[in-house]
Amino acid sequence: MNVELISIGDELLIGQTINTNAAWLGQTLTLFGARIIKTTTISDQEEAIISTLSAISKKIDCVIITGGLGPTNDDITKHTLSAHYGLPLIMHQETLRHIENYFGKRNRPMLESNRQQAMLPDGCVILPNKNGTAAGMWINDGNQIIISLPGVPYEMKSIVQEELLPLLSQRFKVSAHYHKTAHTQGIGESFLAEKIVDWEQALQSNGLHLSYLPSPGFVKLRINSFAGERDKEKIDGYFKELEGIIPEALYGYEQDTLVSVIAIKLLSKNLTIGTVESCTSGLLAHELCGIPGSSAYFKGALVTYSNELKKKLANVDEKTIVKNGAVSREVACSMAEEGRKILGVDICIATTGISGPSGGSDEKPVGFVWVAIATKDKTLERSFQFGDNRTRNQQMTVSSALNFLRFEVLTK
Amino acid sequence: MNVELISIGDELLIGQTINTNAAWLGQTLTLFGARIIKTTTISDQEEAIISTLSAISKKIDCVIITGGLGPTNDDITKHTLSAHYGLPLIMHQETLRHIENYFGKRNRPMLESNRQQAMLPDGCVILPNKNGTAAGMWINDGNQIIISLPGVPYEMKSIVQEELLPLLSQRFKVSAHYHKTAHTQGIGESFLAEKIVDWEQALQSNGLHLSYLPSPGFVKLRINSFAGERDKEKIDGYFKELEGIIPEALYGYEQDTLVSVIAIKLLSKNLTIGTVESCTSGLLAHELCGIPGSSAYFKGALVTYSNELKKKLANVDEKTIVKNGAVSREVACSMAEEGRKILGVDICIATTGISGPSGGSDEKPVGFVWVAIATKDKTLERSFQFGDNRTRNQQMTVSSALNFLRFEVLTK
Repeated sequence: MNVELISIGDELLIGQTINTNAAWLGQTLTLFGARIIKTTTISDQEEAIISTLSAISKKIDCVIITGGLGPTNDDITKHTLSAHYGLPLIMHQETLRHIENYFGKRNRPMLESNRQQAMLPDGCVILPNKNGTAAGMWINDGNQIIISLPGVPYEMKSIVQEELLPLLSQRFKVSAHYHKTAHTQGIGESFLAEKIVDWEQALQSNGLHLSYLPSPGFVKLRINSFAGERDKEKIDGYFKELEGIIPEALYGYEQDTLVSVIAIKLLSKNLTIGTVESCTSGLLAHELCGIPGSSAYFKGALVTYSNELKKKLANVDEKTIVKNGAVSREVACSMAEEGRKILGVDICIATTGISGPSGGSDEKPVGFVWVAIATKDKTLERSFQFGDNRTRNQQMTVSSALNFLRFEVLTK
Repeated sequence: MNVELISIGDELLIGQTINTNAAWLGQTLTLFGARIIKTTTISDQEEAIISTLSAISKKIDCVIITGGLGPTNDDITKHTLSAHYGLPLIMHQETLRHIENYFGKRNRPMLESNRQQAMLPDGCVILPNKNGTAAGMWINDGNQIIISLPGVPYEMKSIVQEELLPLLSQRFKVSAHYHKTAHTQGIGESFLAEKIVDWEQALQSNGLHLSYLPSPGFVKLRINSFAGERDKEKIDGYFKELEGIIPEALYGYEQDTLVSVIAIKLLSKNLTIGTVESCTSGLLAHELCGIPGSSAYFKGALVTYSNELKKKLANVDEKTIVKNGAVSREVACSMAEEGRKILGVDICIATTGISGPSGGSDEKPVGFVWVAIATKDKTLERSFQFGDNRTRNQQMTVSSALNFLRFEVLTK
């Protein structure tokens, strides 16, 4: 199954928006078993769309177009497809009802331009968009399939996963390329590669392929097999072995996130949690609430950004701050221990650090952070040294604190 | 000057790497005055490169290729260009000396594969790469220019800025294409389009082009002019007019964010701020701390996810919760008013709502949210009805609360 992606939008050409849709589609369709031959980005102009459609190679099975389906004047994809493939626009009643409901539920007036979004090419297969008003379209053109999707990433992604992939798997026999991905946190890519070199060689000599997918703080390890499901057990075996090599880093597989793994452990142990945050300013609490049902374990948090509030809300002794500084082992531990009592929770995580870009010193440079975790029995603490990007430092603090909690408190 | 960008690399097609080079080149060349007609991403295969080069439209003046110039076997761009344009590879002495120096300075052995990087197409103009070993190339093909650059972003960028743009400005008379972007929050794309229809028509009949760039909760409006800086004042005038039409939505231009705009207002009025959060669970506090120097205005927050903590930390009366429910105007106002005193801040924002996916009722469906803002003089409150995606609802609550603060409290 050969795929060509076409992204429509001047904002992509002039670099105002980075084309993450093409990357996501590339990743998703490759895992699905398709081969991406080409990705083209063009302007919101009829001439550009038509000349690109006319130039599609015969060896392409499926063209996926994103963008240009909104309700405004610069959205011309639907009209261009309708004219190019000779499919007049007709009112699609089901889509119209969906759009009416969409506005009704939000108590917002529905405009004529929204009503026009239910005018869709006659004879195309509609790919419903539950998150928005621009439906996806599937047009058969001889042996080729032309798919048109909205450019808003979360609308596009849910249509692909819930509507498009099931239909494509009915149409194409894709070589059941099997893969499984493990998630690690806290080990750099090259350090990880060195640590698992023997394990990697063993699996490669066994016909499997390993990919490293790094992102800040995380590395995903994906094992691929072109032999399909047959290799499932073999791959599971290798990952089991890997868990023994890097237990502090490997926290889950596939859809797992640090928080989903932690939530399961907290719920099974019937433990509640809260946070007292300085440098992460609420992001850790927000992450812990990121999944449905989090109210069963997450109770609340104190964001004590100023020293006054560290004293007033989290009951940290003024002397402890003066003697050790706000970014110190002692203050972090005090925030966690006092916070545990104030929030009335079993476990309390505290963060204090220098996010940057300014505020660092020789002793405590930008990116230096203390994390402490207090439980009924003990308080654990650890310092980290991250880089000089503020946002990155806050995110790294959160993922490191969560993995610290997972491994040292909830697993050991 | 019409430009086509060609990015070479399987890692781009399969989405392992996001194509930031194309975005950077798009931005840089647009500001330079070029017009990006098309961006194509293809595989590291001779056939793909040749068929893409052969299909370049006559109206393209300059093709810029990135990637495939490294020393390993999968780097084939140079050989393909040499064969396609009939320019045999010859040893380029200056590049060879540069490569020898490059390894000498780093005390690293120079391999034969690196020496081969100095073999370059005869008759092309060399664009020296001071940061690496892959030189850039400028090939004249009739009236078209073919530029080949390494794919490593920082090598590519420095060649473009230091070598390519000066040469291009000698060759082309470019009229610097000018654009400016305004940011709006809280108005849907189609509703916005209807509200500004006359304004849009006026600017279009004046030779300017408007684009809508929606993302959840936000719509960017970009005005483009191909007449360059000459249209700057005209465009500024139109935006000034737009500020009068949608003051509640339009919060800034270009690099502005809601928080950066709010921070400037808080600092200039010497006001401090804090939050009391239920459904947003710390995200609002975190956003307010998103920029350097936020400690000057942001003091702290209470995340009162459970009703117990709403009572204990934020001093909300048990009766208020029992009578009205935790998601109510009364509870939101009480959280904001009490929180303002407890945190010792001038302004306190409170959020309480049903993020979902469960917990909704007929009266208060999933996505229903109350936001209250308490100041010394008054408390303002407003309810919102968002959709059924948990993460999205939390983000929409945050952006809506920030814009509510900006417009109703800090601007009026």
